[in-house]
Amino acid sequence: MTASTIIEQVPGPVSKATSDKLNTIFDARAVHFVVDYDKSEGTYIVDVDGNKYLDVYSQIASIPIGYNNAALAAAAKSPEMISALINRPAIGNYPSAQWHDVLKNGLLRAAPPGLDKIFTAQSGSEANELAYKAAFMLYRRRQRGAADWAPEEVSSCLDNAQPGSPALAVLSFADSFHGRGFGSLSTTRSKAVHKLDIPAFDWPRAPFPRLRYPLDDPKNAAANAAEEARCLAAVEALITGWRCPVAAVIVEPVQSEGGDNHASPAFFRGLREITARLGACLIADEVQTGFGATGRFWGHEHWGLDAPPDMVTFSKKAQTAGYFFTDPMLIPDKAYRQFNTWIGDPARVILSKAVVEEILDNKLVEQCARVGDVLYSELEKLASKYPTQIQNLRGKGQGTFIAFDVQDPVAFVAAMKKRGVNIGTCGVSTVRLRPMLIFDETHIPILINTMEAVLSSL
Amino acid sequence: MTASTIIEQVPGPVSKATSDKLNTIFDARAVHFVVDYDKSEGTYIVDVDGNKYLDVYSQIASIPIGYNNAALAAAAKSPEMISALINRPAIGNYPSAQWHDVLKNGLLRAAPPGLDKIFTAQSGSEANELAYKAAFMLYRRRQRGAADWAPEEVSSCLDNAQPGSPALAVLSFADSFHGRGFGSLSTTRSKAVHKLDIPAFDWPRAPFPRLRYPLDDPKNAAANAAEEARCLAAVEALITGWRCPVAAVIVEPVQSEGGDNHASPAFFRGLREITARLGACLIADEVQTGFGATGRFWGHEHWGLDAPPDMVTFSKKAQTAGYFFTDPMLIPDKAYRQFNTWIGDPARVILSKAVVEEILDNKLVEQCARVGDVLYSELEKLASKYPTQIQNLRGKGQGTFIAFDVQDPVAFVAAMKKRGVNIGTCGVSTVRLRPMLIFDETHIPILINTMEAVLSSL
Repeated sequence: MTASTIIEQVPGPVSKATSDKLNTIFDARAVHFVVDYDKSEGTYIVDVDGNKYLDVYSQIASIPIGYNNAALAAAAKSPEMISALINRPAIGNYPSAQWHDVLKNGLLRAAPPGLDKIFTAQSGSEANELAYKAAFMLYRRRQRGAADWAPEEVSSCLDNAQPGSPALAVLSFADSFHGRGFGSLSTTRSKAVHKLDIPAFDWPRAPFPRLRYPLDDPKNAAANAAEEARCLAAVEALITGWRCPVAAVIVEPVQSEGGDNHASPAFFRGLREITARLGACLIADEVQTGFGATGRFWGHEHWGLDAPPDMVTFSKKAQTAGYFFTDPMLIPDKAYRQFNTWIGDPARVILSKAVVEEILDNKLVEQCARVGDVLYSELEKLASKYPTQIQNLRGKGQGTFIAFDVQDPVAFVAAMKKRGVNIGTCGVSTVRLRPMLIFDETHIPILINTMEAVLSSL
Repeated sequence: MTASTIIEQVPGPVSKATSDKLNTIFDARAVHFVVDYDKSEGTYIVDVDGNKYLDVYSQIASIPIGYNNAALAAAAKSPEMISALINRPAIGNYPSAQWHDVLKNGLLRAAPPGLDKIFTAQSGSEANELAYKAAFMLYRRRQRGAADWAPEEVSSCLDNAQPGSPALAVLSFADSFHGRGFGSLSTTRSKAVHKLDIPAFDWPRAPFPRLRYPLDDPKNAAANAAEEARCLAAVEALITGWRCPVAAVIVEPVQSEGGDNHASPAFFRGLREITARLGACLIADEVQTGFGATGRFWGHEHWGLDAPPDMVTFSKKAQTAGYFFTDPMLIPDKAYRQFNTWIGDPARVILSKAVVEEILDNKLVEQCARVGDVLYSELEKLASKYPTQIQNLRGKGQGTFIAFDVQDPVAFVAAMKKRGVNIGTCGVSTVRLRPMLIFDETHIPILINTMEAVLSSL
C-alpha cells in the first residue's frame, strides 16, 4: 500500500451489501466500511472489498497497538482469559484469586502519578459517571460530617427528591465530550446530534479557551493568556454562583470530539488551584488522551501539577475502562454504594494488562513522542505549502495527538480513504490524527504523501 | 458436597487475606468470598479456602449455564473470539464481516416474540438508558412530525436547556431496580444505598402491587385484583397528570432486587393497554428475568400480551447486554444519535451466541420450568413444616425464579453458606433463589436438606 493506490469506491460493493444486510437488524447507517479483521494487521486495516488502508483513526482512537497484535493474541488465548470469559464474576462479591494481581500488574502499573487505587468500568461514559457519583458522595459526606444518613434523606431519595437526591452539579466545558449516559451526556457539550431530545441535568457549562495556533508563537501569547484567564474566571464564577453546589469539574487534556482544542499547562494548573480551593473534585477525562497518545502515558502529565487530579478516567486504548484515584474519602462511607453486578469485565482487564506490558516493554509512549515530533514537522511543511487548505495545525509536543483544520473535512477524509488512508474528523472543520502507538517513522511519508496528493487535487 | 458439610468460617482465612490485600487498591468491602474459578464447576463454586458450595445465587443471577462450561470454553478459544478480543471495533463505523451473523444466529435466535432488531450494550444499566434515549427521541419525533430540528433546539440542548433538552420522564415502580447510571438510577427505587446523594431526574414513581401470596389462592384473589387495579389507576393518573410528558414506562416481570415482588399477567396486560393508549413506550426490563430463569425464555412471555413490549432489555445471563425492538421509528431520524464508540463488545456477544445455543440445544428453559415446579413443591412442604420461618413463598409456575421471606435473611444466608449453599437475599426480608439453568432434580434435595438443617437449628 502506498499513496498511489486508488480505491474505486468507499464503501465498496461488498461492504455496501454487507452493511445493507446488517441494517435490517442493527442500525448500520454510520458504517464507513465493513472490515476483514483477519486480514488487517498492525496499523493497516483491510475492508471486505480487499482495500487496505493505513489507519490513523484507529476505531475512534481506541486501538492501542495494532490489529492482530501477537502479544494480545497470546493474552487472548491464555487460560486466565478463557476462565475470565466463561466464569464472569460479580467482581465486588466474588472476585477471583487473581484479581488483585491482574490489576496491580496491569492497569495500576500505568496508574497516573499519585493515584494508586482503581474502580473498573466498561466504557468511558460509565467511567465518568462513576467518577461523578464518587464526587457527589464525597461532597455530601463532607457536608454531613460525622452524622449518619438522616431518615428524611433515606426516604426522599427513593422519590428522587431533596434532600436525599440533592441538587449538585458537575461543571464541564463548551465543546467537551464526556459520554452518552444521562449524567455523562449532561456534561457533554459538543454537538446537538449527541444531546437533542434527551433530558439533561441543570449543570453549568464554562467556556473553554479558544486559542490561536500555534501555541508557541510569541505573537499569540498575550491573546491566549487573556483568553485562558477569561475562562478560568468564568469557571470560578460558575462554581461560586451556580444554582446549586458544583461537586466536580471534568476536563479533557485535549478536547477531542469537540475539535481538538488545546489549552496550556497554566490553564490546567489554574483549574487545579480553583477546584482545590473551592472544594470541587477535578476529574481528568483521559478516555481519548490516555494510554500514551500525547507522548506521555497520561495527557495531564503535560500540565506540571503539584497535586494530581482527584480522579482520572480512562477507556478506549485501555481496552477497558474505569477511574484512578487516591483519596480514601472517595470510597463511599458504606459498601454497595459504588457498586454494580459486573464492575467491569475481567476479560478486558486481562487484555489491558497485556496492552500495558507491550507499551512499557517496547517504550511505545517514548516512540509516540518521538514520531509525533517528526510528524508535526512534516505537517508544518505541508501547511506552509498549502496555507489556505491546512490551517490551525496543533498538537506540537503532544505525540501524535495532532489535528488541523481544512475547508471541507468530509471531502478531505473521503479523498484520503480513496487513496488508502483511513482518517477521521472532529469538531466542525477539523481533521484529527489518531494513529496507534505502533505508528512509526516509516508510516509518516505514506500519510504525508497521500495528504499532498489529496491537497493538490482539491 | 452434601448438606452435612460444615464450613468453619465464611469468608475463610485465605479469602480474608486475599480480599484484605485487594482492598488496598480496589474496594473489597462487599466480598463474600474469593473464588477459585478453576476449581468451580457446573453449579458448584469453590472458594480459595477449598470450600465448595452449591451456588443458587450465581453471581447475582448472572451465570447462565454453569462454571467452566465446555461449550463456552470452546467459544472462548475460537478464532473468532480471539479476533474479537484483540481487534475491538467501533462497531457502528467498522463492523466485522461476521457481525450480522453473530447477532442473527446468536442473540436474535432468542429475541422475544415480535421483536426482530437489536441494539447492543455492555450492562443492564446501559441497556435501560439506551432504551430510554430511544423512547425520548421517538416521543419528540412524533411531536415534531415532518419538521426538521429547529435552530433553537439545536442551540439550547448544548446548554442542557429547553426545548433542546426537554422535560420528559420515564415512569418506574416503587421498589424497582433498573441500574446505577444517572438515568437508570433515576428509575431505580429499591434502596437508599443505591440512590442517596446522587442527583436524580424528577420522574414519577408508581406503586407496584403488594400482593398476597400464594397468588393462586382463591381467598387472595379479590384483594390482589383490587390492589392491581389501584396501581394501574395510579400509573394512568401519573402519566396523564405528571409535571412533564411520560415517554416510557419500565417494569420488571418480577421485581428482583426490590424483593421478588410478583404481579399477575392481567396487571402487565393493563400496563400494555395504558401505555399504548397514552403514547408511552413500554419497556420490559428483563435483565434478571430474561434468558430462561422463569421457565420461559423471557419473563414477559407469561403475560399473554397481544402486542409485545416496545423494547425488551437484557444483560446478566446473556453475558452481554442490549435491547430488542421492532418499530423502525425507534431508530432515531439521523445516524449517530444512538451511538457510542464500542456499542457493546463482540467478544461478549460471541459468548452470548454460545449461551443461546446451549440453552436451546439442551432445552434448558423447559428444564428450568420442570425443575422449578418440583422445587416449588418441595419448598411448599418445607414452608408448611416451618410456617413461622418461611413465609410468602412465591414464584409458582415461574421456573426456579422462587423466593420466600424469612425473619433474618442475613443470618439465614450466613447459616446456609456454612452448610455449603451459596444463596442470596433481596428486598428487606427475602431470600431469592437464582440457580443456573443447569440446576436440576439432583440438586433439589441438597438445597432442601440444607435449608431444613438451617431452619431446624435457628
